[in-house]
Amino acid sequence: MHFMTALKAAWRQRDSLLCVGLDPDPAKLPAHLAGQPEAIFEFCREIVDATADLACCFKPQIAYFAAQRAEDQLEALIEHIHRRHPEVPVILDAKRGDIGSTAEQYAIEAFERYGADAITVSPYMGRDSVEPYFAYPDKGVILLCRTSNAGGSDLQFLDVGGPAGQERLFERVARLVAEEWNTGGNCGLVVGATFPDEIARVRQLTGDLPLLVPGIGAQGGDIEATVKAGCSADGSGLMISSSRAILYASRGEDFAEAARRVATATRDAINVHRPT
Amino acid sequence: MHFMTALKAAWRQRDSLLCVGLDPDPAKLPAHLAGQPEAIFEFCREIVDATADLACCFKPQIAYFAAQRAEDQLEALIEHIHRRHPEVPVILDAKRGDIGSTAEQYAIEAFERYGADAITVSPYMGRDSVEPYFAYPDKGVILLCRTSNAGGSDLQFLDVGGPAGQERLFERVARLVAEEWNTGGNCGLVVGATFPDEIARVRQLTGDLPLLVPGIGAQGGDIEATVKAGCSADGSGLMISSSRAILYASRGEDFAEAARRVATATRDAINVHRPT
Repeated sequence: MHFMTALKAAWRQRDSLLCVGLDPDPAKLPAHLAGQPEAIFEFCREIVDATADLACCFKPQIAYFAAQRAEDQLEALIEHIHRRHPEVPVILDAKRGDIGSTAEQYAIEAFERYGADAITVSPYMGRDSVEPYFAYPDKGVILLCRTSNAGGSDLQFLDVGGPAGQERLFERVARLVAEEWNTGGNCGLVVGATFPDEIARVRQLTGDLPLLVPGIGAQGGDIEATVKAGCSADGSGLMISSSRAILYASRGEDFAEAARRVATATRDAINVHRPT
Repeated sequence: MHFMTALKAAWRQRDSLLCVGLDPDPAKLPAHLAGQPEAIFEFCREIVDATADLACCFKPQIAYFAAQRAEDQLEALIEHIHRRHPEVPVILDAKRGDIGSTAEQYAIEAFERYGADAITVSPYMGRDSVEPYFAYPDKGVILLCRTSNAGGSDLQFLDVGGPAGQERLFERVARLVAEEWNTGGNCGLVVGATFPDEIARVRQLTGDLPLLVPGIGAQGGDIEATVKAGCSADGSGLMISSSRAILYASRGEDFAEAARRVATATRDAINVHRPT
């Protein structure tokens, strides 16, 4: 199924804009899992099973798996999600960006090896560095635009001119993606919850393009401001990602129940502010 | 040893600015290796052993290994280089870029898991996305600046203003890295051989900062123009990367000898144009 079709169905069927981020940090895993050979997989699997009915998508962050030599556990995790929760799409958070011949290899990694439904990609190297992902017409490609970290401003806030005489780099990226790169209808953008004004601006520039919004929870982004700034006209359009606040709600054996409680509260806190 | 110290020693001792890129594409491997379980490692190992005395550094491109589920072969390859050719530093070409907590994981992947001496990183997310790599004071951090692909112009050529009233994004990146981010003296920049005017401009902006220059060979960059534009005052300063032209010089059992011939010719073609 096309990523966008699956995402829209998940938004509607689950009544949820919550994206559950899977960033398994070994230093924070529940004590009873520590040291077990498949601890990362077991931890994420329990989180997934406890939150799948609350989430519009899952977003494993590949760095956490790669740092632990746990690619096989990431493969098993995504396979588990597809088998047990086939209606929840998986975004591989990888932020890749390279010349075409190398991007082809990254696309093989994300879509063929891991079976991800979408991938995050950096726009710095331009359109031809993104096109190899478009060769998979059912897959989503979510480009970095205005990231949630403070340092994002270093480049993304630079004024690059433009038709109206003033346009910041992230606005140019939003416009390029929405108006020129998204010919296959499979693009989205990353816009951090820590910058609601910029979410509103990106929404204004991109119609109903899906926005992946990290930065609530541990990073301090405001849910109400995010939802009010970012929802599309039909009250969806957002994948609001929370990772640490859900994953590490408890370090006891009740971690999955605790994660479910936080995920439920987060989904509800988002829904309160959605236009009806 | 500090990456920069090792790089300078390799430039001098080997009289070479050639970086041998290791991009093992399974579709192009020598026929007699096809289908073997460790084909990627064996292929790269033979290339490395045949070219180590000609190269100032090796640059494995992680995408080619990840697409083939061959992380263990990448680990073994870098370990082999360190053991057999300890004087040749290894740059992991990964072009990572993420928020600090995730960048910490990528740094663990590159420097602790793989034992790379340096990594390539995207600047799009700003300084705080790069700082976790600086926590490893001996390691090199090579930031994308003006990439070798045509699409690189989409963002990197945008005029971002600046003190002189006109500055392109890649120039701003060069200046930020050289003047502000490089406090530990371990930064370099990626500037494509396909754009010699921009190499010259980056050299002008960055003093003797090492430049990693892909794009000769298969991508069509001109060696003479690259060397004349990019050498630092002492005739070094460049890591001129060639991958496909060396790796796939022959698909027969003589592939390593053929690679050595092309690497020798490339090193010599570079040296002809170096200032003396």
